[in-house]
Amino acid sequence: MASQTDIKAVNTIRTLAADVVGKANSGHPGAPMGMAPAAHVLWTRHMNFSAKNSKWFNRDRFVLSNGHACALQYIMLHLSGYKVSMDDLKQFRQIGSITPGHPENGVTDGIEVTTGPLGQGIANAVGLAIGQAHMGAVFNKDGFPLVDNYTYVFLGDGCLQEGVSAEASSLAGHLKLGNLIAIYDDNKITIDGDTAVSFTEDVEARYKAYGWNVLHVENGDDDYDAIEAAITEAKKSTDAPTLINLKTTIGFGSTKAGGHDVHGAPLKKDDIVQLKQKFGFNPEETFAVPQETYDLYHKVAQKGAEKEAAWNELFQKYEQQYPKEASELKRRIEGRLPEGWEKALPTYTTADAAVGSRKLSETTITKLAEVLPEFIGGSADLTGSNLTRWKGAEDFQHPSTGLGSYAGRYFRFGVREHGMTAICNGLAAYGGIIPFCATFLNFVSYAAGAVRLSALSHLRVIQVATHDSIGLGEDGPTHQPVETAAWLRATPNLAFWRPADGHETSASYLVSILSQHTPSVLAFSRQNLPQLANSSIEKAAKGGYVLEDVENPDLTFISTGSEVPLCVEAAQKLRESGLKVRIVSMPCIEVFNNQSKEYKLSVLPSGHPILSVEAYSTFGWGALSHDHFGLKSWGASGPYAQVYEKFGLTPEGIAQRGQKVVDFYKKRGQPVFSPLISALDDISE
Amino acid sequence: MASQTDIKAVNTIRTLAADVVGKANSGHPGAPMGMAPAAHVLWTRHMNFSAKNSKWFNRDRFVLSNGHACALQYIMLHLSGYKVSMDDLKQFRQIGSITPGHPENGVTDGIEVTTGPLGQGIANAVGLAIGQAHMGAVFNKDGFPLVDNYTYVFLGDGCLQEGVSAEASSLAGHLKLGNLIAIYDDNKITIDGDTAVSFTEDVEARYKAYGWNVLHVENGDDDYDAIEAAITEAKKSTDAPTLINLKTTIGFGSTKAGGHDVHGAPLKKDDIVQLKQKFGFNPEETFAVPQETYDLYHKVAQKGAEKEAAWNELFQKYEQQYPKEASELKRRIEGRLPEGWEKALPTYTTADAAVGSRKLSETTITKLAEVLPEFIGGSADLTGSNLTRWKGAEDFQHPSTGLGSYAGRYFRFGVREHGMTAICNGLAAYGGIIPFCATFLNFVSYAAGAVRLSALSHLRVIQVATHDSIGLGEDGPTHQPVETAAWLRATPNLAFWRPADGHETSASYLVSILSQHTPSVLAFSRQNLPQLANSSIEKAAKGGYVLEDVENPDLTFISTGSEVPLCVEAAQKLRESGLKVRIVSMPCIEVFNNQSKEYKLSVLPSGHPILSVEAYSTFGWGALSHDHFGLKSWGASGPYAQVYEKFGLTPEGIAQRGQKVVDFYKKRGQPVFSPLISALDDISE
Repeated sequence: MASQTDIKAVNTIRTLAADVVGKANSGHPGAPMGMAPAAHVLWTRHMNFSAKNSKWFNRDRFVLSNGHACALQYIMLHLSGYKVSMDDLKQFRQIGSITPGHPENGVTDGIEVTTGPLGQGIANAVGLAIGQAHMGAVFNKDGFPLVDNYTYVFLGDGCLQEGVSAEASSLAGHLKLGNLIAIYDDNKITIDGDTAVSFTEDVEARYKAYGWNVLHVENGDDDYDAIEAAITEAKKSTDAPTLINLKTTIGFGSTKAGGHDVHGAPLKKDDIVQLKQKFGFNPEETFAVPQETYDLYHKVAQKGAEKEAAWNELFQKYEQQYPKEASELKRRIEGRLPEGWEKALPTYTTADAAVGSRKLSETTITKLAEVLPEFIGGSADLTGSNLTRWKGAEDFQHPSTGLGSYAGRYFRFGVREHGMTAICNGLAAYGGIIPFCATFLNFVSYAAGAVRLSALSHLRVIQVATHDSIGLGEDGPTHQPVETAAWLRATPNLAFWRPADGHETSASYLVSILSQHTPSVLAFSRQNLPQLANSSIEKAAKGGYVLEDVENPDLTFISTGSEVPLCVEAAQKLRESGLKVRIVSMPCIEVFNNQSKEYKLSVLPSGHPILSVEAYSTFGWGALSHDHFGLKSWGASGPYAQVYEKFGLTPEGIAQRGQKVVDFYKKRGQPVFSPLISALDDISE
Repeated sequence: MASQTDIKAVNTIRTLAADVVGKANSGHPGAPMGMAPAAHVLWTRHMNFSAKNSKWFNRDRFVLSNGHACALQYIMLHLSGYKVSMDDLKQFRQIGSITPGHPENGVTDGIEVTTGPLGQGIANAVGLAIGQAHMGAVFNKDGFPLVDNYTYVFLGDGCLQEGVSAEASSLAGHLKLGNLIAIYDDNKITIDGDTAVSFTEDVEARYKAYGWNVLHVENGDDDYDAIEAAITEAKKSTDAPTLINLKTTIGFGSTKAGGHDVHGAPLKKDDIVQLKQKFGFNPEETFAVPQETYDLYHKVAQKGAEKEAAWNELFQKYEQQYPKEASELKRRIEGRLPEGWEKALPTYTTADAAVGSRKLSETTITKLAEVLPEFIGGSADLTGSNLTRWKGAEDFQHPSTGLGSYAGRYFRFGVREHGMTAICNGLAAYGGIIPFCATFLNFVSYAAGAVRLSALSHLRVIQVATHDSIGLGEDGPTHQPVETAAWLRATPNLAFWRPADGHETSASYLVSILSQHTPSVLAFSRQNLPQLANSSIEKAAKGGYVLEDVENPDLTFISTGSEVPLCVEAAQKLRESGLKVRIVSMPCIEVFNNQSKEYKLSVLPSGHPILSVEAYSTFGWGALSHDHFGLKSWGASGPYAQVYEKFGLTPEGIAQRGQKVVDFYKKRGQPVFSPLISALDDISE
């Protein structure tokens, strides 16, 4: 039964939520007030955490999928003794505060993943749960359950309506993730009003259809014991994730409780007064926490610290008994790469056969899988096309399926690109894992909502994106990513790579793995590409470099991926007619932009025109070239060489355009300046 | 019972599919061979169509959601007498053919929507079904069921795994769309092999949970009568869409039938030989159609033509009895806009109050809703934020809910951005409707897969995208679309608008509605914007124009949306220190790019530097400006004015950067050329 102490604590959370949102004059009080009992019960009776060491590896993970309710999460972190002070709560939604409008991984102590964009959190949580299942399967030993945490999620109607949550939930059911416990805030209210206007499906039946364990708490407002019992029951499920359908009243305590007015706007002043009076709080006082509540949470925090201490002891024993495994687990928790891993990256000579860069990617993945046990991933049902599965890989599957085990490192994500990427965000956030996922470049767009969160959350997620242009040929325009590179290049803290050969492929993996806080999308061709004469891993790792140089050039071609070898041929043609032509290969603009000004100007100097060549929309090339040759429209369906020909992307077509550019600038007879020159960026010559 | 004629026809489809894919040496034979019975039964016993007039308005719509199986669709169109010849089948997946690798709306006679990207087709079909329900509710009269077609969909495991299909299916269940019949090709095979590796949910239970009518055919390979009976049963469902779970054998007839080898690669030659022998066809002959099969389909086509004739008669009677409605239906079917509709677009003076452009959008939508009955749409659960619902709007809801009717024009899409946009693609494809949908600009990314198909399919879908920058303030970086504009601007045939005031808002709707074959995304601010002194609908309709001019300028600011008024203030400051400053407002680059070279050069001439100012990633501005002021990273959470200040996006900050650019170019003392100048595009001065 709920004690007075519990009730007071819950009402403290509710009044604090009203104050936090009220002071900011912005935010969402309704869900925090409705979910206060669930948060209180979870934190005080179930969750394992170490507030003073929020990165303790075996902590339970908590994800607020309905991230707009973050006032609740900040309050819980404050009460529990994380580095979130009362002043921080008072700075809710203010510039430079650690309590932004939605929770951000890396900004606030104790926030596991960035949420707010609906549906992402529950999908991240599936990734976190897979992370536990995998690390546990690899490192736990009899008597040493070193990795056995749960992942808890709160989510609302909005999360459940989003397709990304459907994808991830279906896969979670398939994978039988018993360590995942989701609590659905079934308050029947969304921004448009009653869920009756758009969301009348039977959520419980749907989750049962996914293979989840579904529980139900009828009174989530007052019946703390029922909440506790449901969580206890959920923890017993070993072969199915659990959804607890918790009926709550949004904005519980407000005069507007149960309606959408309390969803996304502060409570009115007189409403806060009555709320505090009703709950026995002083209406004159704001941001009040009874000592009794602090005491209760201090005790919980103390228990957590003890659990961490016990875990540390267990780890020491493990270290004695399994020194190799212990040192490996330590290495992975700390995120250190194995000594010399990069020597596994393949190198090539021009004598090597021309193959699709997806094949070069396969070779690289195969080598990396040997030396990087933390490198795990898979494909959205395109394994045979993406070429992402290495020889001898074991699938990550529940052992009962006979198809693999939780120690398996290869994932069958199904045709679920958005869920896949969001799951990989969770895997990266879990720790000890470098996740990759794969689809056609065109379908990375399906995952756009999760891709931007990889970047915003500084998560090292590697996307293998094959069939990267019109070069996929017959599948046609529906599958040809004309616009995708521009989007990815415009995204801050995201490295979009388009390697032209084997060395550049190795470089793309090298830099992606070394970039601990940056996600990467690696675009690979379906069609065969020759090994370039002058490439190297070292040069390509700078993002852009001079592939072929000449003194006093008439023209520089700047190009990426499968168009680089075409430029090599085009340059040869132009040289035959007496022109001096340079070639710059630019596999990753983001990484190139981070080089020194001197280096960049040495690659793209003033004095002659630079022409970009790429089988994409030319949008964005103005920053690196004077004229731009690419696609002005969608692609076409046909054998790939004919598709390239249709758009003039042949050595002849490129040479012809190069000549045109040279003639134009010669005729103009004016100085030509590097496109890099910028007053604002202080780049001049 | 299946007659020999039926069996021969079905086996003709199967052998033809093997030949079509075989000759192209590329494509997907498995699903066409497995779904041949369903296609045959649907076409010959149920579907209403007029092959000679594929646009007959009351035709049943057919959508191949598993678009990779398009050999099947092309074969059915050929047999039924559409403009798809045997030669066209022989040109499958070849450049310039009307039989591309995946079906494309507008390329092939009889293709309703572009499919291939999985999950889109079923969501389009929900839109097509809504289209029928709405047009029927508006125009049908007692005894005049003018609009009563069904929408049929084939879909596979891949479609069912995609989140977009989950979103659309949940909404279809909510809306009780009895006119929608989906046939699920349950062949247990995806590219990665058996569905057991990733897709083990109970699909039937899930669709029941959505409120669908679920039927089951155990033997989809041979039991044609069961297929017919299931479709007959489905057509009786008046208040629920139907999913028919049809068990089939992928690649039926091949020696590799039932495995994933037949999914995406041609059958081997000897396999085709045994297939033809087994089915009693001459193995020496390719592309063979028995006369008996042609005869059967000719009869079906004849019946279709008769149905169209009967419909035309019915329409004539309707015209006599309901002349006003008939002329209105005709107008809408033909896609003519009402005379003078554009006069409804609001105009403004500088005396009008500063309001958020989302509010200006609301005013415009309200005016347009009065004069354009075909203008229908809604929001992904952000009605009160997007401001998309006009006064007096009725919701589109099943009448039994008491919340609206099928004649209602306002949609509660739920938090389902991807499904929403794909549904709007279907609505636009249905005809007689100009659909709009709404969310925050940041969440248009969730719908990226459908947005690119709006553009590729030339569908006039209007996205209202509010909260269009860091100007949304407190919600923070998770909700701030820094990279989104670049992606949309890089997409061919898509108009991304970012209006700066009321006139530009009116212009954005004007051009979007006039652009019959181009989708538009209209980005609107949350924060207040003043009415500009020199804007007009006419000027803004050119996409970009000179807002403030001066002779012999030192600098031009080029800007969009909420940053234009900041530039106006910044220019004033610079004028005070003696500089001559022009301002160009560029609400839509796509539309500006389509103007004449002369006009474009008059807006962005040579002779002085041009500085872009936009609260987004600067990626892409190199095409229109010499230097670029914007965001190099993600945004921040806080009151919007402070967020702008943090990034220097204030009149002072902009003026300071303008001065820096002027100083830089003056010091360099070299001619400055318009960024529009291009040798390849033949733009010079």
